[in-house]
Parts: sequence; structure tokens; C-alpha cells
Amino acid sequence: MSKIRVMIAGFGNVGRGVRLSLGKQPDMELCGIVSRNVDRVKKEISDIPVLPIADAETWVKELRPDVAILCGGSKADLPKQGPAICQYVNTVDSFDNHSQIPQYFETLNAAAVKANHVAIMSTGWDPGIFSLERVLGGAFMPGSRAYGFYGLGPEGGLSMGHSDALRTIEGVVDARQFTHAVPEAVERVRRGENPAFEPGDMHTRECFVVLAPDADPAEVTKKIVEMPGYFAPYDTTIHFVSQEELKERCKGFPHDGLVITAGETAKGTPALAEYRCVWGSNPEATANVLVAHARAAARLAAEKKSGAFTILDIPATYFSPLSREELLKHWM
Amino acid sequence: MSKIRVMIAGFGNVGRGVRLSLGKQPDMELCGIVSRNVDRVKKEISDIPVLPIADAETWVKELRPDVAILCGGSKADLPKQGPAICQYVNTVDSFDNHSQIPQYFETLNAAAVKANHVAIMSTGWDPGIFSLERVLGGAFMPGSRAYGFYGLGPEGGLSMGHSDALRTIEGVVDARQFTHAVPEAVERVRRGENPAFEPGDMHTRECFVVLAPDADPAEVTKKIVEMPGYFAPYDTTIHFVSQEELKERCKGFPHDGLVITAGETAKGTPALAEYRCVWGSNPEATANVLVAHARAAARLAAEKKSGAFTILDIPATYFSPLSREELLKHWM
Repeated sequence: MSKIRVMIAGFGNVGRGVRLSLGKQPDMELCGIVSRNVDRVKKEISDIPVLPIADAETWVKELRPDVAILCGGSKADLPKQGPAICQYVNTVDSFDNHSQIPQYFETLNAAAVKANHVAIMSTGWDPGIFSLERVLGGAFMPGSRAYGFYGLGPEGGLSMGHSDALRTIEGVVDARQFTHAVPEAVERVRRGENPAFEPGDMHTRECFVVLAPDADPAEVTKKIVEMPGYFAPYDTTIHFVSQEELKERCKGFPHDGLVITAGETAKGTPALAEYRCVWGSNPEATANVLVAHARAAARLAAEKKSGAFTILDIPATYFSPLSREELLKHWM
Repeated sequence: MSKIRVMIAGFGNVGRGVRLSLGKQPDMELCGIVSRNVDRVKKEISDIPVLPIADAETWVKELRPDVAILCGGSKADLPKQGPAICQYVNTVDSFDNHSQIPQYFETLNAAAVKANHVAIMSTGWDPGIFSLERVLGGAFMPGSRAYGFYGLGPEGGLSMGHSDALRTIEGVVDARQFTHAVPEAVERVRRGENPAFEPGDMHTRECFVVLAPDADPAEVTKKIVEMPGYFAPYDTTIHFVSQEELKERCKGFPHDGLVITAGETAKGTPALAEYRCVWGSNPEATANVLVAHARAAARLAAEKKSGAFTILDIPATYFSPLSREELLKHWM
């Protein structure tokens, strides 16, 4: 059987991770990269074709992709790229703006149905694996609620969105934000209390901030802790550091998370299910999940399916390179 | 929409758990119980019909089930009941004899396809949720291996199969077996070593045995520790206790387990995913998973699907009572 031809659209940290992951798959190959900035990518990549993302007619013909993995950002890139690129090829993306998911699904589904392509959206580890674990937890433990926690290790989890938010503040030269789960909140959920948390009850936020020479630390602190949505509801700690200290402390993109479903199967009989993941590299973790979904996209397309899909719509066999015989024999 | 009519076939601990779980489902109802021993069940159940399992023509007509949940044992009951009952109705079972799964799939699939029914097999928490987590772990972390551990808490996990095996030994009046995970083995897997374990490296076995008055403890001990497959490969501890002590110590059916997938996303970048469950009642846990699969069976049947299915073949949405809109809005 010929290999699934996968194209990477957008070559940042996630795109690099997709390339690494494709190298480990027995049934897939990287057929090319498309980017807004071909020259930049070509400096890094010399062994595979790199083409402008805008020239769809060209890359469809030259790369002949079965699936495109869209590695752009959820804010500016994916809302446009998803519906546009799925006109030409089956797609997989990691759109992670939770509140916009229903609307994005509508738009993407309409475009994909019209083009007769498969468009798998909002996958990675959250949304993605965590969505799946939440739904399974609720289905297998009726009456329970699923809770998500992030940053359970001592270092916490690096949040790119909150780091970006810090850097928009006047007087901030550079910054990183680490999210920490509140241990007491985790224990309350594990005990099956099904508590009604406010956002600030579950997590705290720790900021490492490099100030501009003339910036006033008190003023920057006030702007951070009062930022609505991002920091105002949370217990927030701020460390002012030098650029060197920031670099030293913030290597890589570690993150981790936990989904807990707790309840009871009968009155007084407790039940607990937890899914935990710990990633040395958040973007590489996302990349591996995207690649498994590219396999699913190719298989759904081979069955003449079309439209938008999420991880909740796809059986596990579609993600695996293993045969039905192998799965029944060794993996059940 | 009318509720899914679910029939329980076999009324032991799992059957009782299915009844409890059905009471919590918004879209399902218990339409009746079938059993080999109608009189025994009628002593416990007075508000719903109880019919002989052998009279299929009668219960099909009188109970009009959409799905039958088969709650019999994997050794003697399910290999016959699965193929027989799926001639009359869609079925769900928890067949858990791992080595026989490929063969059971063949037999069940042939019968279900012929009858144009859906037969979901081998579900519960292991096989079942654990099978799913193993396959997802392997798919999302290429090159890794998934490991299953049981009995991680101080009490260990009660194994019915090993308890039954102990009771077959001459001189044993009653017995329970608790499985314990080996903590060092768990840590080796978490560290990403992907070790090649022998069975005895991962678990130890603890037996509580009530001897017959004339039995020789040394002889029984020898028979236990030398029993091939069940105890011979394991570090086994035996406690001889009175029937009263056994009753006191072994209340309920607690069990717990852990699936670990560990590897790396790039050279030197670690990745870890774990699914853990802790059940106050093992049969009630299995029952809840079976009930969610009954929902999936009814939906697959409504789509005119037929044949044998496992948890690996079914999208998560099929297990959930929630609408697509609700899932996209609140659960992704």
C-alpha cells in the first residue's frame, strides 16, 4: 500500500514536531511544506519541497498531498486557513479557542462538505485527548463531572497565550507565564465532591517578567493582576527577572495536565478515573496527536466521508497504524 | 424520542450494577431481566418482568428489547450466549478472556452479520477502557509501549479469576486473591525505559485462604505457588485465615488499575500519558461501561450497521447522551 502523503501548512514549533513525528510513522510520508515565508523555511529545510501557502493550485499539483496538517495559530491563521485549504485537500488542525469551537465547526463543515473533503478540527491534547477523556468520563460515570487541571508539576505548565498577553503590556520587554494547579482543588475533585469552582479556585499564575529600563514595577504589576480574564480572577505571582535569567529558567515548552472524573457507582461506592499527561514539549505533543489524526482523515476520506470532524467522532482504530488482527490479538 | 429498551441477561453482581446504572440514564429504560434461574431473581426483583433466558421467542415478543446486556461469565456463559442471543437482539458483553478475543470476535461477528444485529464485545474497564487507552497511547506516542498495572492502592485489587482458581484446590474452603502492582516496575515505565517485563516482574499476588479442618497448610501452599499461569510466575504471599476473618477483610469488590504510555517526542524530550481508575465496586464499574455501550449499540443499529464491534470501533459521541451541540459547546 502506498504511504499517506502529508503536507505541513505553517512551519513553527508544531510544524517541526509534525516533521519529527512523520519520521516515525510506518504508513505516512512528508510530501512538502507550505508557508507564508518560503525563504525562512528553506534556510532550515533542504530535503523536501517548500512552496508558498497562497499558491494552492501549484502545491496541489506538485505535492499531491492526501492530508494537510495546519500548524498555524488559532487566533489569526486557522479561522481563515481551515475553510480555505479544505477546498483543496483533507485537513487536520489544532484550533484551540474553546468558545469559538461551535462557530468554527459550522464554517469548516460547510466548506468541507462542499469540497467533498474531510476536515478534522481542534485536536491535540486540549482540545483533543482531554475532550475525549472528559466525554468518556461523563459517559462511563453517569452523574459525574469532569475537571481539567494544568501545571501539576513543581515547575507548572508554560502557557503561550498568557505569555503573549504579558508581552502586550507597556514596559514589558519579555515574559513567560506558568500555570499551577491548586493541590487542594485537585484533592476535592478526587474525593468526589463535584465542586462548583470559580476559575481562580483551580489554578494560580506565576509570571516571569523582563522590564524595560524605564518601566515602573508597581505600575506593571497593577496592569498584570488587573488584566480581565487572563489574570484578574487568579492568584498571580510576579517575578521581575533579567533577560538572561528568563532564558535560563524558561527552556523548552513543558506542559502537563490532568482530567479527573469522580463520582460513585452506587450510594457510597466511590469511582474515580484520571487521565494525566506530562510533556517535555507541548508543541511536539500536539504534533504527534495531529499526525495520528492525519491517518484518520485519510481513512475517512477513503470511505467517501466528508465534512468537519472532531476527535469525538472518530473510532480509535482510525488513529492506529496497526491492523484489526493485531489490535484484537495484542491490544484489547 | 422513545427510550432505548435494555434487557439484562444474567442477574449477578454485574447485572445488579447495570440495573443501578440504567436508573441514572436519561435515554434508556430497563425492559426486563432474563435468567437461567427465574425464581431466584424474582425473589429480588418484583417491579419488572423476569423471564427464562432460554425462551428467546417469548422474551423478544414480551420485552421488545432494543439491546441485551449479557452479564454472564466469560468462561462458560458468553461464548455460547453471545452468538445465540445476538440472533434475536443487539447485544453488549464483557467477554474478558484476552487470549480468546480474536476467536470470539470471529464467531460473534458471523452470527451478528447473519442476524443483521450489532454485537459489542469485550467491554468494561479491562478489556474496554484500558484497551482504548493502550491503543490511543500507542497511536499518539509513536514508538512507545503501553503497560497495564493493577492493584496500586495499599489493599490491592480483588481478582475474581484468581480467587476462583484458589477455590479449586483440594483443602481450600474459601479464598480471595488480591493483586498488587510492583512500585519499582511502575516507576521504570514512567521513566520511559520501555522495559521487557516477564509477568512476575509487574505484579505480586496476595492470597487469603480458609482451610478445610483436615487440610495440610504446607501442601496447600505448594499447590498454590506452583499453579501454572495463575501463581507460579509471581511472588505469592499466602495468609491462612478463618471464614470470619475472610468476610471481615474482603468486603465488596474494590479494584483499580493504571495504563502507562511513556516515550519521547524527540530525542531527550520525555512524554508520559497515564490513565488511572479506582473503583469501589469492580462489577458496578463494568456495568456502567456496558450501559454506555448499549447506547452505542442502539445507535449503530439505527444506522443499519451489523456485526461484532469493540470499544476501538466506536466514536466517543456514541457513548454519550449529550447532543452534538452540547458536546461542541461545553465538552471540547
